[in-house]
Amino acid sequence: MRIRGRDKFLRQYNTYIEEGRIIPEAPKYKGRWRELFGNDNPIYIEIGTGRGQFISQHAVQNPEINYIGIELEYLLLGRVGHKAEVAGAGKNLIVTPADASRLTDFFEVGEVQRIYLNFSDPWPKNRHTPRRLTHSNFLKSYREVLDAHGEVHFKTDNRPLFEFSLNSFAEDDWKLSKITLDLHNSEWAEGNIMTEYEQKFSEQGVPINRLEARALPKRDL
Amino acid sequence: MRIRGRDKFLRQYNTYIEEGRIIPEAPKYKGRWRELFGNDNPIYIEIGTGRGQFISQHAVQNPEINYIGIELEYLLLGRVGHKAEVAGAGKNLIVTPADASRLTDFFEVGEVQRIYLNFSDPWPKNRHTPRRLTHSNFLKSYREVLDAHGEVHFKTDNRPLFEFSLNSFAEDDWKLSKITLDLHNSEWAEGNIMTEYEQKFSEQGVPINRLEARALPKRDL
Repeated sequence: MRIRGRDKFLRQYNTYIEEGRIIPEAPKYKGRWRELFGNDNPIYIEIGTGRGQFISQHAVQNPEINYIGIELEYLLLGRVGHKAEVAGAGKNLIVTPADASRLTDFFEVGEVQRIYLNFSDPWPKNRHTPRRLTHSNFLKSYREVLDAHGEVHFKTDNRPLFEFSLNSFAEDDWKLSKITLDLHNSEWAEGNIMTEYEQKFSEQGVPINRLEARALPKRDL
Repeated sequence: MRIRGRDKFLRQYNTYIEEGRIIPEAPKYKGRWRELFGNDNPIYIEIGTGRGQFISQHAVQNPEINYIGIELEYLLLGRVGHKAEVAGAGKNLIVTPADASRLTDFFEVGEVQRIYLNFSDPWPKNRHTPRRLTHSNFLKSYREVLDAHGEVHFKTDNRPLFEFSLNSFAEDDWKLSKITLDLHNSEWAEGNIMTEYEQKFSEQGVPINRLEARALPKRDL
């Protein structure tokens, strides 16, 4: 069964490469993503696309934004490609199999306008702290690839991860805004596009935490 | 009964004025609090002392800090004075009946090193937002009376108030740190001095939220 699934995903993966939806070699486009999109629109990336509902719907709703979905599990990208196709996403959405810890290898300084982190792995064990996508090492790379007005938009149902992230952003001198501990019952609920995971967990009554963070020039204090 | 209680509190109130524990006229000491304490030690204030357990224990544990408790309900101050006496607090603790919205009337610019806000009234209704002690109007006055390294330490069991406060501090360009959504199970649990209210609610399993905020020079962005 696993192999049959795997074959299907691999077939999808290869199909979407041919169609240009999946870009297998992200580093090749460092500093040249706008060339690839063929326009000068802002670039929003999602780190960890999951099955792709979030980024597909965003791409459909905002044709004037270029979206790049990054997902380490390249076999998932076939499904993301399919989801994008079904949603009717245009050429403004591409996805790429890549490791977020090498972000600066495939984006130039200031090339990105927004980074979405949705329900990232909480890595609850202390020794895994550096793997959390809001660890200071990651924030450093986000700061590098984001432009001066760039933002990270982060949501999670995992309260300890959210707490960790609040401290991590604040410590690293990001300006936080639109912080909520219960997104779906907040003033920011309207227009919120849910991930598959978010839909499932919010139906169970789990509150979703969310924040926006803007990279500010660091200051010595 | 109410009148008997009131009489007792009034008697206590007057007694503690005579003993110098209660200072009835805060504005008289604006810019001169260190003179009153007779030393140059840092000044930490608590806005809303409640019954005084928190500030009394702090004063006992930190004789090298001057504490000023501010409480609008002046009759409560008799009890605070009593609590301070029983706890064995020295001359480094005084309390004063005053309205926090007039803070700049009784503290000089930069005269204060730390402000404690503990379980402040959440004022849940939208139209009462400006009464919340972490509303931007209050933050403005805190920024004025705190010195360059001054901090606000805030805790509450009220999650909507905490959420509001996170946004309020961040928006007003304070540097947040030691944010926790469950103080008693966090790395900052040790050494935490509880208020009467905190003790009661944490025994019922209500998680306590806490943050520290440092007033930074505002920047235009």
